[in-house]
Amino acid sequence: MKDISLVALSENRKKTIIEVGNVKIGKDFLFIAGPCSIESEEQMYGTAVAVVEAGSNMLRGGAFKPRTSPYAFQGLGLEGLKILEKVGKKTKTPVITEVLDTRDVSWVCEYVDVLQIGARNMQNFSLLKEVGKVNKPVLLKRGMYSTLSEWLNCAEYILNEGNPNVILCERGIRTHETYTRNTLDLSAVPAIQELSHLPVIVDPTHSTGRKSLIEPMALAAVASNTDGLMIEVHINPCEALCDKDQALTPAEFSTLSAKVKKLKNFMGELD
Amino acid sequence: MKDISLVALSENRKKTIIEVGNVKIGKDFLFIAGPCSIESEEQMYGTAVAVVEAGSNMLRGGAFKPRTSPYAFQGLGLEGLKILEKVGKKTKTPVITEVLDTRDVSWVCEYVDVLQIGARNMQNFSLLKEVGKVNKPVLLKRGMYSTLSEWLNCAEYILNEGNPNVILCERGIRTHETYTRNTLDLSAVPAIQELSHLPVIVDPTHSTGRKSLIEPMALAAVASNTDGLMIEVHINPCEALCDKDQALTPAEFSTLSAKVKKLKNFMGELD
Amino acid sequence: MKDISLVALSENRKKTIIEVGNVKIGKDFLFIAGPCSIESEEQMYGTAVAVVEAGSNMLRGGAFKPRTSPYAFQGLGLEGLKILEKVGKKTKTPVITEVLDTRDVSWVCEYVDVLQIGARNMQNFSLLKEVGKVNKPVLLKRGMYSTLSEWLNCAEYILNEGNPNVILCERGIRTHETYTRNTLDLSAVPAIQELSHLPVIVDPTHSTGRKSLIEPMALAAVASNTDGLMIEVHINPCEALCDKDQALTPAEFSTLSAKVKKLKNFMGELD
Amino acid sequence: MKDISLVALSENRKKTIIEVGNVKIGKDFLFIAGPCSIESEEQMYGTAVAVVEAGSNMLRGGAFKPRTSPYAFQGLGLEGLKILEKVGKKTKTPVITEVLDTRDVSWVCEYVDVLQIGARNMQNFSLLKEVGKVNKPVLLKRGMYSTLSEWLNCAEYILNEGNPNVILCERGIRTHETYTRNTLDLSAVPAIQELSHLPVIVDPTHSTGRKSLIEPMALAAVASNTDGLMIEVHINPCEALCDKDQALTPAEFSTLSAKVKKLKNFMGELD
Repeated sequence: MKDISLVALSENRKKTIIEVGNVKIGKDFLFIAGPCSIESEEQMYGTAVAVVEAGSNMLRGGAFKPRTSPYAFQGLGLEGLKILEKVGKKTKTPVITEVLDTRDVSWVCEYVDVLQIGARNMQNFSLLKEVGKVNKPVLLKRGMYSTLSEWLNCAEYILNEGNPNVILCERGIRTHETYTRNTLDLSAVPAIQELSHLPVIVDPTHSTGRKSLIEPMALAAVASNTDGLMIEVHINPCEALCDKDQALTPAEFSTLSAKVKKLKNFMGELD
Repeated sequence: MKDISLVALSENRKKTIIEVGNVKIGKDFLFIAGPCSIESEEQMYGTAVAVVEAGSNMLRGGAFKPRTSPYAFQGLGLEGLKILEKVGKKTKTPVITEVLDTRDVSWVCEYVDVLQIGARNMQNFSLLKEVGKVNKPVLLKRGMYSTLSEWLNCAEYILNEGNPNVILCERGIRTHETYTRNTLDLSAVPAIQELSHLPVIVDPTHSTGRKSLIEPMALAAVASNTDGLMIEVHINPCEALCDKDQALTPAEFSTLSAKVKKLKNFMGELD
Repeated sequence: MKDISLVALSENRKKTIIEVGNVKIGKDFLFIAGPCSIESEEQMYGTAVAVVEAGSNMLRGGAFKPRTSPYAFQGLGLEGLKILEKVGKKTKTPVITEVLDTRDVSWVCEYVDVLQIGARNMQNFSLLKEVGKVNKPVLLKRGMYSTLSEWLNCAEYILNEGNPNVILCERGIRTHETYTRNTLDLSAVPAIQELSHLPVIVDPTHSTGRKSLIEPMALAAVASNTDGLMIEVHINPCEALCDKDQALTPAEFSTLSAKVKKLKNFMGELD
Repeated sequence: MKDISLVALSENRKKTIIEVGNVKIGKDFLFIAGPCSIESEEQMYGTAVAVVEAGSNMLRGGAFKPRTSPYAFQGLGLEGLKILEKVGKKTKTPVITEVLDTRDVSWVCEYVDVLQIGARNMQNFSLLKEVGKVNKPVLLKRGMYSTLSEWLNCAEYILNEGNPNVILCERGIRTHETYTRNTLDLSAVPAIQELSHLPVIVDPTHSTGRKSLIEPMALAAVASNTDGLMIEVHINPCEALCDKDQALTPAEFSTLSAKVKKLKNFMGELD
């Protein structure tokens, strides 16, 4: 795979470890949870307390939502970021949010610990260059049409601007299958790990789009040796402003989280 | 197809006609030609004179190039735009260029007649909103993974911000086939025309990625009733800084252009 | 493209011309029309008279139908073949039908002029070998997941068994798009023509699955230089036992056929 | 999902358990191993002894190979079946082989315990009907372009003919990704289990096409709750007549097998 000199695995290059708060991503298992969108302080805080209690070590919450339709809820913006920051501080847990616009990168960094680049913006090269200039880690989701080679080249854009802290996130690719929203490509996990030193995590929520498939796919991801998981949790999924059919309740997340941890420990002893 | 009230075809809504210079897009056949990248005034001007002579009524030239690798030629930027503007004026032909960054939209408008949103940025909703606020027409390429519904929703984003002048451009979708770079979905032309009042053109160059297939696909597009074509032409393809294997020479373009015009006239009389 | 020595275009190998009745396929434009399924002599004959009158030079009619569900109409079998043969004789027009089973190949040849291998059986290598042993031409549809290379290798199977008379038929590939049933890959026409000496035709009915798209795609196919078309026509589409939403009426076919012929003549003079 | 009354999961219908030799498929973990092609008694027997020793409870070996090119090794045919039967008896392990032709179904049953329908023949409905008439279990691979709905309808074809013993096998679907041969869709495992009472296993070899990815994907499949695995093993992969780059050695299989068993036991205790 050409042109990925900075992200490529090589003899001289150890696996990237990214410290965020107390978490050493790439070494510790990263467990991001939270709602699709930040809707209110009550919703965000209630969800956060529950998922942190259940073992999540990073909180997600969208303030800017890339929605297919211009008439769908677009997120709370700055108000959402303020809520996210506050909740992160109260729960002593680092927070991550998606950024959509080059103009927002620097000021959004004031509110969050990690920036997320979504699947639709994977090849938004201006945005990649911009997040390459800040000193916050970047979680780069795989485009739904993207090859592994293209994805790694996008990470290369970020590293090439000076930011070495990129976390890759497999979130499903678009295929002919319609039962699931996308097709989770779990083979991307070991494939990325043999190509690159960057940590790679898995999002079983957006890839499957089906609540019933989240647990088996989360466990499968752990067995494939993923460096972490990103799961959508909402304190009251029925009232969520987006993706209500796929968010777990805190109780469901807690059950899943316990299994994930046990399996992760088991896998560590399997080799 | 829900949520596309502004772009949807309806009884009360006539086909959109967009005037750019002397061209009435949606009524006159739009014939965009020019190089992938602006490399120098000499290259741009030489190509422009030839393609305008051969019947092109709009000039393309990339100043900001979205490249898979950060190490590939990224375009001349402002310098390129100045060349493009100058060449457009000298040849009295409107010019189009791709814009990649929300921060560039307003000032790039000073140099060109039409803004292009590339396939990789089709769902860059910040960029769509920004080009929705200017008074220049926008050519919106279909994402390589995009459904017709998603594409039309992206156009809806632009119209919803107040800019009614959107031209859609089919440029191939990503499939399992590897002989061609992408798979040109010509059925998108009549499909869009039954769903929307916006003009829809075809790019046979980037979709096929093979010089030998450009002419048959350009003619097929005309027969499918496309509102225009976008073709890559370079005065010296062998020395092009990108996509050298697929650019036509001015002489090849001239031959193609003559056929396209004859076929277009014939199709007008066929009904 | 390796391993296709028999089907590959080469200096020493002229384009294959296949004579069936009065038609020289590869030289004359092949225009196959008829119903998806043979349902009765009345239906088949009524349709046949109309399409032959309108310019069709080969009749299609399915006696064995490969249906997704075992509970869908599976075709009339032998009874259907007898009807097809009779109708072909009465209208003095060659007939084609799909064969699904190696055990049926030799006896089905007694009733029809051309054997069809459907998309789902493109890589049914036993069936390919069997039709390679008979002295009837074979129309080989492209699998919905197939690359051009795989498709040509399947033709190679047939030629390798001794049957040189293969007609290729592009019928759409499966992609993420859902507006159309499949995505018609018209670039396959010129691509095949630069790779192989075999004639290649287009099926705009099954590829688009939408009546409104058949005419523009048929005309586009002609402009792409296809060697023929295969169109579904039913004397009474509303009562068709399968694919009722996509069959043309004889009157609609007649209108289309007139345009196709005019365009074909025009294209012949364009070079 | 309509039209799958026989294969659909329902309150009254318990999970299908298929007894083959001592293995209760659907209850016991099915572990099929062996070479892509049977090449000689020595090769087959050597491989078989090793994989049975390592815990495989069913032996695979191809006698009829569906190859893309007619010039590739097509399998030993009857000679191969005789070897397979002999090796199965000597190792007291049931054997499975792929059948390609309706004419072969009944006599191949004389030599093997389970019939396999390959991905390319998933919608070979004649073949499905034929294997529906015999009293041997059928392993039905998913077509590389197939939806879950289509796949289950193919199983319905077999059950509808009277054979209730169908094992489904996910083996990867065709996508735009090129790093892996196909994209293993592990979400198919829990998806099938919520739709159908049939057992579903996973083939990590053919799906990934890369030796390095087999172990992580095998373990991921176990964690997703698959009912079994099918793995390609060759006593001397370098000399294999097909797919040499993806076959495990017996030693590699033994290592993998030990991990699979431990993980399977662990998963059983996780709930």
